[in-house]
Amino acid sequence: MGVMRIGHINVRVLDMDAAVHHYENVLGLLRADQDEDGNIYLRGWDEWDKYSVILTPSDRAGMVHIAYKVESDADLDTLRQRIADYGVEVDELEPGALRDCGRSLRFHLPSGHLMYLYAEKTFVGKAVASTNPDPWPDGLKGAGVHWLDHALLMCELDPEKGVNKVAEATRFMEEVLDFKLTEQVLAGPDGDVQVATWLARSSTPHDIAFVGGPRMGLHHFAFFLDEWSDVLKSADVMAKNTVKIDVGPTRHGITRGATIYFFDPSGNRNETFCGLGYLAQPDMPVITWTEDQIGRGIFYHTGELNEAFTTVYTDGV
Amino acid sequence: MGVMRIGHINVRVLDMDAAVHHYENVLGLLRADQDEDGNIYLRGWDEWDKYSVILTPSDRAGMVHIAYKVESDADLDTLRQRIADYGVEVDELEPGALRDCGRSLRFHLPSGHLMYLYAEKTFVGKAVASTNPDPWPDGLKGAGVHWLDHALLMCELDPEKGVNKVAEATRFMEEVLDFKLTEQVLAGPDGDVQVATWLARSSTPHDIAFVGGPRMGLHHFAFFLDEWSDVLKSADVMAKNTVKIDVGPTRHGITRGATIYFFDPSGNRNETFCGLGYLAQPDMPVITWTEDQIGRGIFYHTGELNEAFTTVYTDGV
Amino acid sequence: MGVMRIGHINVRVLDMDAAVHHYENVLGLLRADQDEDGNIYLRGWDEWDKYSVILTPSDRAGMVHIAYKVESDADLDTLRQRIADYGVEVDELEPGALRDCGRSLRFHLPSGHLMYLYAEKTFVGKAVASTNPDPWPDGLKGAGVHWLDHALLMCELDPEKGVNKVAEATRFMEEVLDFKLTEQVLAGPDGDVQVATWLARSSTPHDIAFVGGPRMGLHHFAFFLDEWSDVLKSADVMAKNTVKIDVGPTRHGITRGATIYFFDPSGNRNETFCGLGYLAQPDMPVITWTEDQIGRGIFYHTGELNEAFTTVYTDGV
Amino acid sequence: MGVMRIGHINVRVLDMDAAVHHYENVLGLLRADQDEDGNIYLRGWDEWDKYSVILTPSDRAGMVHIAYKVESDADLDTLRQRIADYGVEVDELEPGALRDCGRSLRFHLPSGHLMYLYAEKTFVGKAVASTNPDPWPDGLKGAGVHWLDHALLMCELDPEKGVNKVAEATRFMEEVLDFKLTEQVLAGPDGDVQVATWLARSSTPHDIAFVGGPRMGLHHFAFFLDEWSDVLKSADVMAKNTVKIDVGPTRHGITRGATIYFFDPSGNRNETFCGLGYLAQPDMPVITWTEDQIGRGIFYHTGELNEAFTTVYTDGV
Repeated sequence: MGVMRIGHINVRVLDMDAAVHHYENVLGLLRADQDEDGNIYLRGWDEWDKYSVILTPSDRAGMVHIAYKVESDADLDTLRQRIADYGVEVDELEPGALRDCGRSLRFHLPSGHLMYLYAEKTFVGKAVASTNPDPWPDGLKGAGVHWLDHALLMCELDPEKGVNKVAEATRFMEEVLDFKLTEQVLAGPDGDVQVATWLARSSTPHDIAFVGGPRMGLHHFAFFLDEWSDVLKSADVMAKNTVKIDVGPTRHGITRGATIYFFDPSGNRNETFCGLGYLAQPDMPVITWTEDQIGRGIFYHTGELNEAFTTVYTDGV
Repeated sequence: MGVMRIGHINVRVLDMDAAVHHYENVLGLLRADQDEDGNIYLRGWDEWDKYSVILTPSDRAGMVHIAYKVESDADLDTLRQRIADYGVEVDELEPGALRDCGRSLRFHLPSGHLMYLYAEKTFVGKAVASTNPDPWPDGLKGAGVHWLDHALLMCELDPEKGVNKVAEATRFMEEVLDFKLTEQVLAGPDGDVQVATWLARSSTPHDIAFVGGPRMGLHHFAFFLDEWSDVLKSADVMAKNTVKIDVGPTRHGITRGATIYFFDPSGNRNETFCGLGYLAQPDMPVITWTEDQIGRGIFYHTGELNEAFTTVYTDGV
Repeated sequence: MGVMRIGHINVRVLDMDAAVHHYENVLGLLRADQDEDGNIYLRGWDEWDKYSVILTPSDRAGMVHIAYKVESDADLDTLRQRIADYGVEVDELEPGALRDCGRSLRFHLPSGHLMYLYAEKTFVGKAVASTNPDPWPDGLKGAGVHWLDHALLMCELDPEKGVNKVAEATRFMEEVLDFKLTEQVLAGPDGDVQVATWLARSSTPHDIAFVGGPRMGLHHFAFFLDEWSDVLKSADVMAKNTVKIDVGPTRHGITRGATIYFFDPSGNRNETFCGLGYLAQPDMPVITWTEDQIGRGIFYHTGELNEAFTTVYTDGV
Repeated sequence: MGVMRIGHINVRVLDMDAAVHHYENVLGLLRADQDEDGNIYLRGWDEWDKYSVILTPSDRAGMVHIAYKVESDADLDTLRQRIADYGVEVDELEPGALRDCGRSLRFHLPSGHLMYLYAEKTFVGKAVASTNPDPWPDGLKGAGVHWLDHALLMCELDPEKGVNKVAEATRFMEEVLDFKLTEQVLAGPDGDVQVATWLARSSTPHDIAFVGGPRMGLHHFAFFLDEWSDVLKSADVMAKNTVKIDVGPTRHGITRGATIYFFDPSGNRNETFCGLGYLAQPDMPVITWTEDQIGRGIFYHTGELNEAFTTVYTDGV
């Protein structure tokens, strides 16, 4: 009941050919569709719905919208009411407004990011079929990512002006969409400013995350790999394709994720990370990182926060 | 809302010293408690509730009961009603009837296995703490398993007599406890006999499983490891301790799990497996294995079903 | 100076199309050449000489010959003399007698196996080039094995009749070809019968091995993989291609190798194993396995010797 | 015949207690001995000679000497003559001059580094014994490194002044000690200045390496681990012990090694890397890296040369 997982992300790219090469041959997504406006739709081989990434041609990078899938159509009615009751303007769109999807809800998170909820998307099935499947399909390209796993959204944070969109977005996700807060960074003189949060609806450490910064934006969106050896392979693949690696291979203290970050040709940051990390559950105590350990929380091995990692990101609208 | 995960399993052991050595030093569980009846309580380092395994001294091996944790105390009322409405006798026990637990529901699955549901158990926290945690604790012993992950229960199956407790138990889990069927083996002349099932409440491929056999029993209970290198280490640890390895390292077709099976000193079968496998979701199509591919489904590499694997198991009551 | 490594193995196959498919698409060898007699030549992507496997069409499986490469042409003169002095008949063949090779020595090991030594083979270079190479090439197929690493030859052993070709072949390799004995199994009532040996010229645990059996033959020839995750991938690839897996994934006590064994379509046994294991050095003490621990030595995890593993093998002549 | 491998390295440390904690509990070396001058001797669990690291108390960090083990005592006579014939002053020291070693040769490399050769060192055996050994011992601490594998020595390089100690040291190792050049970086306007080299006597990619810099020194000494999962564990161990990680986990283009670098408490750089990489052989073509690809050669993933990595190092005398 309620939100199940991230359904797709819609990002802008500057050079569609370069972008398609990157997502298809380097990350290993499968091409699903394209529309009359030049948008390209892709999915991971382990996903069963038609697409999880929409690339939109543009003159600037960044996120157009992010969409989450809910369990049943009726959930949309319930959630529409809860969103409105929370004081957030919400529109209901007819089927097809999101290509290949049923009716959807459209609203802005308190952080300003545009979010959709939908209950139905055209089913195509995993690349390994549903009867006597192999554990992985033949013909995988590049890093061979399994699925779009989560996104990290940058939220305006200026404690001196009393602005903390991280906390606002987090509260919305918890109270309205029933996300579970799994980890948070608390900073400030009294250690009570929520400057970064990770939240889950599935049993994984995060289905969405928010981090504070000077302006709202898209920090990264992430794809799942099985294990650490796949992260090495992914890093090798990036090097072979001269994809700019931002960080890694390394491990996060937060979520325990082993990972690399890199940029698509338009400058949108991607992540390929591996493993479950831990079983996120409603009764698991929230994990809190204190300001003095942020470095270790983000980059567990060096314990040093790469400045660019928190300041370089693409637009959120 | 509803069932979250396996809470604990209570198994009988013949030699308590040997059993404790096995679960503590070989599997790497942490000793949590012992009671006046000689029961020993243990948990994995990545669990936050006090225990997940209860060892009960006995003159025969097998399972006493299995317990699942529900999200809220109110869920117990709802589920008590649903269980009773389904025609299954259910008792409500007062807090403490299950040591360190709040009130609980007790009933038998259609397969005859004794199950409890509870909403509260004494919280002790993970071995890595909740503030600025390391990804793993120092001082781990043996295989260093993270948590009790699931159990596979053997159910009486005799299609000629019209007995299929696999199907009955599965239907109960789906209809009453809202488990999601993730995978199944269909056999028989018409390919419609559900001879084995895997079901989940979390986003992992299984929180419980049922397989048909000549009598009800306990096939195995399983512990989580991060990845394939941990499975090799676990197998090495078993060899160093001359623990009898039943199967593996290998991969299952079903759940994609990479794994080893082995026996505790009393003959109860344990599993240490690794990885998420895939993200189980309510809308994921059920994966079906046909009778001719059972071998590949169970042991993906050889494709051959080890006879002992399906016929050797301990008691279920 | 002297022998460097295994140069190639020449095996017989029953169905050349099936064999080529197996070695090229499943193991991932690169096709190098074919000759007028229908022999097919292949090599691993990480080898720089033209070929390391010769497939010869035949009506029975097994080994035709095995060849080792020596460091310099002058070594052939020295070794020819030493072989002859040892009492073994040796022929010198002119360049080209072994396709694409310089002059060669031909002789039979005391076990009866036909061996060649040569100093030159046509150089083609690794698939990753010698200038600014990537760590692995694009377009690898199947298991993507690096190189032919070693072979295990079965030698006639009948202690009651005083026949021990293992010991004879071993002594020849040590005394004439300067191989280092790294590991051995000693059996028999007095624990002094050398029933299996592993020997090296490189710094790896074995470049050749001998095991006793009822008749001489070819037990297996093995290909190198980087690490344990590659062994899982290799096993998955065998399963996808319904290649018959004999054993594994598992670890040997002997050499510490993590491995799988399987059969080519003709019944010749292949191995893909991973890792260095340990650094074999002339001054490393010989590792000895006693008869009661043979099981653990061969299959470290189960400690049980699969009967077929030691009795099923193809011809050695 | 000739040099077999690195035998030990003698480094200076500022705080012996901190150093011993680092090498014993964090790297996981075994304490072997200490002498009247306060030197501490350690070895890896997979080594059979008594020690491979000597820690010498001092007020500055850096290397005192490096020692290689030769195969036989007679090799010392041969090599003494060859060294002298090359024009390098060489002393023969009596047994015990190097603690627990037989007679030794002492000389300076053309780069100025002090090197010893010896043929005998007190044998103690691997931690896993020589009869029926386990693949790894119980009770390993920290990263659990197997053995001291190689060292990288910084050599004075000033092409404008015609100073290239890299080339001089390399030529000496090749011509006098019969090392095989496996990889090199060629730079300069004509691409003919040998600014870095890797050389081997064993079948591994390097037993010693030289890199040019403003002054001679010790860049790092490295320990062997099995595979990539061990590198992650090593990095985790460093983080848990707040050891300063310099670089990694990452992969080198050169040698293909997957690795982390970090500093001991005195500032000496250590490496833990994994895997064989490739089989180094006398007939393998030398791998050459061109100046424009140095970044990729050193840090394959990012392709960017961390300035500190080549400029920060400890003394070589």
